[in-house]
Amino acid sequence: MPGEFDIINKYFRFSGQDKSVLMGVGDDAAVLALSHSLPGEKNSGGRLVVATDTLLEGVHFPAGMPAEHVASRSLLVNVSDFAAMGVRPRWFTIALALPDANEDWLARFSSRMGALCEELTLSLVGGDTVKGPLSISLTLMGEADGQVLSRAAAKPGDELWVTNSLGRGGAALKLLDSEKQSGASPGNISAVEKEQLLQHFYAPDCLLDLGVGLSGVAHAAIDISDGLLADAGHIASQSGVAIDIEWDALPVNTIAKKLGNPDEVRRWVLTHGDDYQLLFTASAGKRPEVEALAREADVACTCIGKVREGGGVKLHGIKSPLEEAAGFQHFS
Amino acid sequence: MPGEFDIINKYFRFSGQDKSVLMGVGDDAAVLALSHSLPGEKNSGGRLVVATDTLLEGVHFPAGMPAEHVASRSLLVNVSDFAAMGVRPRWFTIALALPDANEDWLARFSSRMGALCEELTLSLVGGDTVKGPLSISLTLMGEADGQVLSRAAAKPGDELWVTNSLGRGGAALKLLDSEKQSGASPGNISAVEKEQLLQHFYAPDCLLDLGVGLSGVAHAAIDISDGLLADAGHIASQSGVAIDIEWDALPVNTIAKKLGNPDEVRRWVLTHGDDYQLLFTASAGKRPEVEALAREADVACTCIGKVREGGGVKLHGIKSPLEEAAGFQHFS
Repeated sequence: MPGEFDIINKYFRFSGQDKSVLMGVGDDAAVLALSHSLPGEKNSGGRLVVATDTLLEGVHFPAGMPAEHVASRSLLVNVSDFAAMGVRPRWFTIALALPDANEDWLARFSSRMGALCEELTLSLVGGDTVKGPLSISLTLMGEADGQVLSRAAAKPGDELWVTNSLGRGGAALKLLDSEKQSGASPGNISAVEKEQLLQHFYAPDCLLDLGVGLSGVAHAAIDISDGLLADAGHIASQSGVAIDIEWDALPVNTIAKKLGNPDEVRRWVLTHGDDYQLLFTASAGKRPEVEALAREADVACTCIGKVREGGGVKLHGIKSPLEEAAGFQHFS
Repeated sequence: MPGEFDIINKYFRFSGQDKSVLMGVGDDAAVLALSHSLPGEKNSGGRLVVATDTLLEGVHFPAGMPAEHVASRSLLVNVSDFAAMGVRPRWFTIALALPDANEDWLARFSSRMGALCEELTLSLVGGDTVKGPLSISLTLMGEADGQVLSRAAAKPGDELWVTNSLGRGGAALKLLDSEKQSGASPGNISAVEKEQLLQHFYAPDCLLDLGVGLSGVAHAAIDISDGLLADAGHIASQSGVAIDIEWDALPVNTIAKKLGNPDEVRRWVLTHGDDYQLLFTASAGKRPEVEALAREADVACTCIGKVREGGGVKLHGIKSPLEEAAGFQHFS
């Protein structure tokens, strides 16, 4: 059976000939040339960026997760795609499937989503509800002012960067799992550390300011939603380059390191899909600009590797868990 | 428990203050003011129209419906919203939940959707798949050139019009139900008539050309997806007018009339939500233009009532099935 990438690539690429589609199926978001514009200057009007993402209970978040957290996670996971494009989302629509119309759940979901939207200057402009297993499908839209980052723009000689730390997504899932199984959380992290891990799961880091800043500086960017190796692989294959990653350079999250054994931590950092950090490449000469943007946005940016001619992703300094390197595949 | 309208109105209206949202939650589609434009002329750039709609197996179409029909129904039901706005959709994204990655199903779904997109000059620009009960959530986008039709623009003195015929949606469901129950279809319609009914269910009439033509002529418009009385009620309440509908004027579908008893037919015509015909109002003086557009688009348009000052929908010439008049509510 094909995985999710294969389904999209094999069956959803039937609109290849439309010149208004500057980026289509296969990047974090689509980039569309708006046609209204100055008379006689077709396609000078602007570009619309669109991304759609669905979160399903029991697959993308644990069953029974409180409504507030479902709201923040579903919105911020979608915002992460826009951070990776370097574009601010302005509007979105929601398609919500609900097992029943629980008013308390809806009030809490709506209140948290409304508060986040206000923070992000993002407007909900359309909605549809159906009865069914809980899922939240959002389509975000925004207008691009400057350069739009893509997966396909890495260049040999670029440095590879990642934001904040890696491993929190996998660690949080272990925490949630062990609480479900035993009713207690592993004893080797403090209550504060536990809360920090869960907070990132419920409300992944919003990296919009950094992403927008990077749009004039970086070459390629992606958000880590399939796992570091898989997402580096997307950049490598779509840019036609090779990527070297240094294990020793990776910013492994310190709480994750305490919570997992070395094999678990390696898996969380390299192949887990819940970190929603930005992975981007920029020419080595742009290092001062990258570091300045990181300070300004208060986001740690770590250089973790290099881009060179060739193909594929090579991990140095640790055995690559090749068998797990396909990332997060819903149908495999 | 609240119905679908109440959920959307009560919980999804938290973005009321954004001036770029010209029409938001509550119409068939959102209308957004694009900000890029001539320097110094904010919001002169153009308008983006966006509509999102989800179809769930077992709710919006019968379980086991062939992939080709799932593709055409889900796309055309969404296109119907654009017809009601008088705007051509140009791009869309898909969020597809699938119980498994059945390659044969996907190939047939994708092939039919691709063919329809080519006919409609509509491009698929983004997709997301998750594992789950079959549902198809589409978000269509288009740019408005001229006037955008809305539910809120009916004026006292307008005539009320409906396209083609009413009752096919309910009749088709009866046909599908009786085939499922007894393995045979009711004997009082011919094989050709049966096929015609099912075809409209699988691929509802595409009324885009008429809708776009009406955008300079009609006042209010809506597509009948909640039932004639409920959708007339949306126009009445959002326009602040009363609507009179004449039962004797309604274009009842002749095959539906053969298939159902009088009570069933009355229900299919007045409260069933599957007809996807356009219901619109235009001033009486515009009758020649409406009739010319109808001829040009090869769509029958029938005047079925009037708009006057006041509120609510009044049905004349037959007892109104008030207890059914709430239309199609997923959660009631």
